[in-house]
Amino acid sequence: MKTRGCCASICQCFFEYSTPKILVIRSFKVGTLNRITQALVIAYVIGYVCVLNKGYQDTDAVLSSVTTKVKGIALTNTSDLGLRIWDVADYVIPPQVSPIRIEDESPDASDCLPSGVQTGKCVKYSAVDKTCEVLAWCPLELDKEPPNPPMLADAENFTVLIKNSIRYPKFNFNKRNILPYVNKTYLEQCVFNRITDPDCPIFRLKDMVTEANEDFQTMAVHGGVMGVQIRWECDLDMPSSWCVPRYTFRRLDNKDPVNNVAPGYNFRFAKYYKNGNNEETRTLIKGFGIRFDVMVFGQAGKFNIVPTLLNVGAGLALLGLVTVVCDWIVLTCMTKKNIYNEEKYSYVDDFQLLSNETP
Amino acid sequence: MKTRGCCASICQCFFEYSTPKILVIRSFKVGTLNRITQALVIAYVIGYVCVLNKGYQDTDAVLSSVTTKVKGIALTNTSDLGLRIWDVADYVIPPQVSPIRIEDESPDASDCLPSGVQTGKCVKYSAVDKTCEVLAWCPLELDKEPPNPPMLADAENFTVLIKNSIRYPKFNFNKRNILPYVNKTYLEQCVFNRITDPDCPIFRLKDMVTEANEDFQTMAVHGGVMGVQIRWECDLDMPSSWCVPRYTFRRLDNKDPVNNVAPGYNFRFAKYYKNGNNEETRTLIKGFGIRFDVMVFGQAGKFNIVPTLLNVGAGLALLGLVTVVCDWIVLTCMTKKNIYNEEKYSYVDDFQLLSNETP
Amino acid sequence: MKTRGCCASICQCFFEYSTPKILVIRSFKVGTLNRITQALVIAYVIGYVCVLNKGYQDTDAVLSSVTTKVKGIALTNTSDLGLRIWDVADYVIPPQVSPIRIEDESPDASDCLPSGVQTGKCVKYSAVDKTCEVLAWCPLELDKEPPNPPMLADAENFTVLIKNSIRYPKFNFNKRNILPYVNKTYLEQCVFNRITDPDCPIFRLKDMVTEANEDFQTMAVHGGVMGVQIRWECDLDMPSSWCVPRYTFRRLDNKDPVNNVAPGYNFRFAKYYKNGNNEETRTLIKGFGIRFDVMVFGQAGKFNIVPTLLNVGAGLALLGLVTVVCDWIVLTCMTKKNIYNEEKYSYVDDFQLLSNETP
Repeated sequence: MKTRGCCASICQCFFEYSTPKILVIRSFKVGTLNRITQALVIAYVIGYVCVLNKGYQDTDAVLSSVTTKVKGIALTNTSDLGLRIWDVADYVIPPQVSPIRIEDESPDASDCLPSGVQTGKCVKYSAVDKTCEVLAWCPLELDKEPPNPPMLADAENFTVLIKNSIRYPKFNFNKRNILPYVNKTYLEQCVFNRITDPDCPIFRLKDMVTEANEDFQTMAVHGGVMGVQIRWECDLDMPSSWCVPRYTFRRLDNKDPVNNVAPGYNFRFAKYYKNGNNEETRTLIKGFGIRFDVMVFGQAGKFNIVPTLLNVGAGLALLGLVTVVCDWIVLTCMTKKNIYNEEKYSYVDDFQLLSNETP
Repeated sequence: MKTRGCCASICQCFFEYSTPKILVIRSFKVGTLNRITQALVIAYVIGYVCVLNKGYQDTDAVLSSVTTKVKGIALTNTSDLGLRIWDVADYVIPPQVSPIRIEDESPDASDCLPSGVQTGKCVKYSAVDKTCEVLAWCPLELDKEPPNPPMLADAENFTVLIKNSIRYPKFNFNKRNILPYVNKTYLEQCVFNRITDPDCPIFRLKDMVTEANEDFQTMAVHGGVMGVQIRWECDLDMPSSWCVPRYTFRRLDNKDPVNNVAPGYNFRFAKYYKNGNNEETRTLIKGFGIRFDVMVFGQAGKFNIVPTLLNVGAGLALLGLVTVVCDWIVLTCMTKKNIYNEEKYSYVDDFQLLSNETP
Repeated sequence: MKTRGCCASICQCFFEYSTPKILVIRSFKVGTLNRITQALVIAYVIGYVCVLNKGYQDTDAVLSSVTTKVKGIALTNTSDLGLRIWDVADYVIPPQVSPIRIEDESPDASDCLPSGVQTGKCVKYSAVDKTCEVLAWCPLELDKEPPNPPMLADAENFTVLIKNSIRYPKFNFNKRNILPYVNKTYLEQCVFNRITDPDCPIFRLKDMVTEANEDFQTMAVHGGVMGVQIRWECDLDMPSSWCVPRYTFRRLDNKDPVNNVAPGYNFRFAKYYKNGNNEETRTLIKGFGIRFDVMVFGQAGKFNIVPTLLNVGAGLALLGLVTVVCDWIVLTCMTKKNIYNEEKYSYVDDFQLLSNETP
């Protein structure tokens, strides 16, 4: 009998529907206040969160692979090296790593300055002076200023083809920066231009530097690092053809003249030879170059029910806040607040019993 | 006396508990509707958000470091180079940068074609013809088709050991792709196979290309870029041994025959020599190679109270939506809606006073 | 007349304000319970979500570019190579790619061991033995143990200048790891030290290895991979000068002696020469080196209204949970629960009509 009663009670509970009792206040002022506040919250949730911030989308970060190919031939004529021709294999170091470097040679020094490892011996430096013996590659490197104008001044007209393949793994979406409509004919003659050719993946070095508000010839003297930023901001609820790369260029190293520490970009490398006697010799090159770092970033969004309902839920909760605000105004500021208070609140007073309950 | 009254009022307010007055409707239909809607929301919140999407977890993106080591020896026999042996130092360019390139030499051209810098002089080209003088490395490069079959056809059996160390900085979690149970003996003889050896970090080049539905020999002719994708999707609430890398392979460059712009992958580099007269010479190599880009991605999740309560909160707010839906059905569609309406709503009517309040 | 009635009905509905009817229970116990629970939820939302987890901020991941420059000269004296000096151009391979490698040469082997491509011919190996003919570069590489002590023991005192430029694209915020107050004088003499010089971007190799709890000399024998982790955790609501890099160092390759598969870090590369007869020769070098991988990570946060309201909304929804918990306690555990129940709940019972409604 008892379990049956319990069962019945659970059943009864299951078939109950609890809904709060509502006091409806019919008033121009209160009604208008209420509707305006509700409209604001709803407009915010729908307009700002859902439409502008795309709160209904799941997002994924981009996975990227970049290959580059530089084209261009330059001619230099210096007293050290004589007339010399430079092509891709000479000036791109190292060959085909994504950051492109266009280097500029500073020829070997010809005087032995003491900058090697000291052997501890004291040797005659000239007829009069003595100096500490130093073991080093000979002749030593002369830390002189880089040539100005830079040797590879012509490099400003070099072009670089940047091939960028991206992937959004969460959405299994792949795309390349050579867009479908770009054909071979166009690619053979186009050069990137923000207005006329925004989708051409071939960039003239000078254009890139100019877009970053720098001067190529000035920058080439001490070298520098340029960031080629490729942004893929994709809304995958839209046609995939709308998902296109945006290119921006920025100088990454400091050129602040006031606090100019470690300016520019240079690096040393050597070419090794063996002479007739099988002795190893090397040509040490201090290259002042411009390094182009290709940085790919971006985010793709696609409709997903989880963030949508997360935002809707939070929006609904904010709608609850409307009641709190309106209640406060209605029950404290309105002329008829006493009537509203009486109708809204019922009281169960426990305080008479307090002396009995607490020790 | 007055401050004391104020204090008492605040105290009284503090010890008040406000709870909404509830109308309970006991009805099979309404109760069932209510419970089903509630069950749906709860099932969504718990099942989809929490379990499937792991809404209770904080996430972190992977930090990764990759080193690679290629093994293999190939033999070529061409009219240009004669019988020649290739080992790792010859075909991996540059040595030990993460993207691996297996290159394929196209030997120097032997005719002087005009593709350098024009000097402006007009010189005799043959007994009859004249041409513009060009300053360039001599002999000039001949832009001929890459050899087919590719010179390094044997490279398909080369293997590459990929060592990948990852870190989830937020959770201070480190792991390597050489899993703890992999011992030296196994590593010396294993080759990755999706079914039999899914954890072996040694990959045969041909297998990688085949998994991407490409043919190694075809691809090797013009070169290409292969993506080796390592996915680390880790649930750090589970044993860390469950956090293992998943390897997939994908061709990153375009091979679409219709819109085939800038196909394949090739690059030029030079080896420099000095001859007996101390003159610099170089061997220019146009390598058609396959570049392997190792791309590591993934996300780790671990229980965190903040996203949990964010999702629970949003879920609760959605439960509030249930009342709205049920109320609407109950108060407009049910036969006894008038009774429910009367019981649920009380009215305070302000409209009689409107003519007095508004001007 | 009817449309006008409809209009009026809509108007009336528009100027209605619905507010739930509230039962206020005045009781020490219930009131205190209510306030404590509310305080907990509010404290959690404000303290933990908003302050500690900065739930009011939108976040962005870091974009980074790194250049490095190694300084140092070492001297080696081995029987193979004789007295030899090493400078940056010799030991940094490849020149100026972000991962720095300090390599250590193992000289060529001098015995022809069979590890090339077998020609299929059988040739005399000595007066007695025969062996399979092998085509390979001659002499073959001898797979001997790396020299110990390592040849470039002096490299521990080399320093590396790490220039790191970061960007948070969403907030258009750029910064470099050479902080504004660092001047040229300081940069010329400083070396990173976690306590005295935490902002100096010049690192002594030994210090980096020591910070990772490794011994440079031991590590240099078989080589290894060191992670230079630069963490940019930036609160962009604060002055941008508070956004500074934090450097940590970690060994990335396994050195677990029990499961020591593929230990250390080594790679092969070759220098190519042409001898007097225009034949190509090469010096094969197996370098045991320490590779330094610079890994930049971090997250920037800045106030944004969307995540703020998302968290506030979820917090409000959690406040709704307080009522549920308190109701349950009040209506089941309190001595006067019957009075509360009566006051809170009204009932509309539908069950009498059930037999009529259901078939």
